[in-house]
Amino acid sequence: MSTSSLPKTYSHYYLENRGTFDSIKFKQDVPLKAPGLNQVLIRVRAVSLNYRDLIIAKDQYPLSAVPERVIPASDGAGDVVAVGDGVSNWKAGDRVMATFTLDHQNGYFDEASFLDSTIGGAIDGMLAEYVIMPTSGLVRVPEHLTYEEAATLPCAALTAWNALFGTDGSVALKPGQSVLLEGTGGVSCFGAQFALMAGARAIITSSSDEKLGQVAEAVKTLGGSRLETINYKTTPEWDEEVLKKTGNQGVAHVLEVGGQGTIEKAFSCLKQGGVVSCIGFLAKPGDMPPNVALLALVKGAVFRGFLVGSRRQFEQMCDAISLHKMRPIVGKVFEYKDARAAYEFQAGQTGFVGKVVIKVSN
Amino acid sequence: MSTSSLPKTYSHYYLENRGTFDSIKFKQDVPLKAPGLNQVLIRVRAVSLNYRDLIIAKDQYPLSAVPERVIPASDGAGDVVAVGDGVSNWKAGDRVMATFTLDHQNGYFDEASFLDSTIGGAIDGMLAEYVIMPTSGLVRVPEHLTYEEAATLPCAALTAWNALFGTDGSVALKPGQSVLLEGTGGVSCFGAQFALMAGARAIITSSSDEKLGQVAEAVKTLGGSRLETINYKTTPEWDEEVLKKTGNQGVAHVLEVGGQGTIEKAFSCLKQGGVVSCIGFLAKPGDMPPNVALLALVKGAVFRGFLVGSRRQFEQMCDAISLHKMRPIVGKVFEYKDARAAYEFQAGQTGFVGKVVIKVSN
Repeated sequence: MSTSSLPKTYSHYYLENRGTFDSIKFKQDVPLKAPGLNQVLIRVRAVSLNYRDLIIAKDQYPLSAVPERVIPASDGAGDVVAVGDGVSNWKAGDRVMATFTLDHQNGYFDEASFLDSTIGGAIDGMLAEYVIMPTSGLVRVPEHLTYEEAATLPCAALTAWNALFGTDGSVALKPGQSVLLEGTGGVSCFGAQFALMAGARAIITSSSDEKLGQVAEAVKTLGGSRLETINYKTTPEWDEEVLKKTGNQGVAHVLEVGGQGTIEKAFSCLKQGGVVSCIGFLAKPGDMPPNVALLALVKGAVFRGFLVGSRRQFEQMCDAISLHKMRPIVGKVFEYKDARAAYEFQAGQTGFVGKVVIKVSN
Repeated sequence: MSTSSLPKTYSHYYLENRGTFDSIKFKQDVPLKAPGLNQVLIRVRAVSLNYRDLIIAKDQYPLSAVPERVIPASDGAGDVVAVGDGVSNWKAGDRVMATFTLDHQNGYFDEASFLDSTIGGAIDGMLAEYVIMPTSGLVRVPEHLTYEEAATLPCAALTAWNALFGTDGSVALKPGQSVLLEGTGGVSCFGAQFALMAGARAIITSSSDEKLGQVAEAVKTLGGSRLETINYKTTPEWDEEVLKKTGNQGVAHVLEVGGQGTIEKAFSCLKQGGVVSCIGFLAKPGDMPPNVALLALVKGAVFRGFLVGSRRQFEQMCDAISLHKMRPIVGKVFEYKDARAAYEFQAGQTGFVGKVVIKVSN
């Protein structure tokens, strides 16, 4: 390892006494280690935030144990600055993203132990000036993307990709079908982009015409004439509007991010035999959960839970992003020193569409 | 059934003493029958020809027995002029196409007896002024298409659709992947259109720059910037060119229509784990067949034989064609009286791209 141009120390954020955003702490002068066997050292350039990052800081994350003083954030992009022994396929200067689940290489998420390798949660994440990652957890950044854009891909984009293309053949998304996206958050924006890219009709909802306009503008070159928008504030019966926009066929895929506030309406505008990809679990305490068993039975539907996607899927997604010169929708960029403000902005859910990014270094 | 405006008799072509195109005979003054239970009477407006039609006339078709005096041609479009008892979902005036395999409603072609219901071969086909079809064998014509265009869909288009979207999830076509189309015949042209529509890169070969230019022009609005063309006459090592155009990844899907002249090169530019959809079986007598077992083993490939597709797939394909306002490439239109000339023109394989159509009535 050549370390001539590398600093001796670096800084990172970490979470301590989780419960509120006060748990987000900053640490400097941490000694920089060398990458080991089959590892690379990455200078992080940008990080993006997900809903998961917020609830991990708030100690509300149900899916995996989170160790004290973990480095937060699953999503980041940077460049390789040093490689360890045994590394032949990566070199200094390569632009990379880390995968959300380091051990999920291919196929379905069919080992519970995969959860132990989810970064920014079960193990250290990306909100740091430097990170060390195994080569098995790296994906190359598409050439046309900036680091800020690339940092949005590992969790939200791959979740949307897996929802649309990770199902078995008979229910895989096909050109001409319709996809429902709820709201204009990261997953939904990516879902709209991928659905259009795949020749489908994308129907996206929001309470804000301005946000819907921003999405429409951003997807123009991907087949934007196939985007339909619905303001669910001015059209509270938005499920009926979805049916209308699909000639009463209903949508073949729903990216269900809304949780119990939206599930029943999502099923009501789902086509027979459609797929509901269950991504969100927003719920107010005390609310009665919807009767998904009955809803799925009536529609002969697949209700599918999954966590992000595999490295192979990530690579396939990047091929598609490259071929289409697709650009992720970055709603707002914060400086590294303002990471906590970025968390608060993301939690506010207003004033942006797409992804919130933290610029770590130039 | 109201028959007030219908003629008493009609004409149709039929095949007798098959072996050459001399077997194509014409018959007039055939009494027009009324449709029975769950049947409709269709006034045929246009028919398109496929390679299968040629070799059925030449008595070289290997897949099913063909009865003497069969009415030829699998592909046609027309309008319903009368409906039989029990028909509630179709009415006079509806524009329809018949399905290639009347009994193949959904799922895989998993019953050998399906072959007994393939029209224009095992049973009577579409080269007639009127035909009677069961409602289970009907698909609605997309609104924006003419009868001539619609007549091209039942066999060639659905074959291309099934090749790309009829495989199981892990090998289903995804945006960003590449598809190889061999030549500019009907299936290959449709394959290029569907691949582009689905966000893939389409690579099409031909010996003629003029034909390649015609295809490029025709697919412009479907994402034509993702079309790549290769002249295999000026680039005999076209498989290497395919690899170059895919950044050495190779193609994920091949629509293998060329038979043994192309199979080895197709495998050589196939990506690891790709799919070769086996559609053609052109071969000169005495030629040694390629070692597909070894080729497939080396590439971990799926080599997939199938026959056209199901009615459900046909309907899904029409949804896609409608959403994209896609137009089939019609290379040449013949008059009804010149049906034999159409056969000869199609057999010549020169002077057109896409489909050869016979206009039956206005």
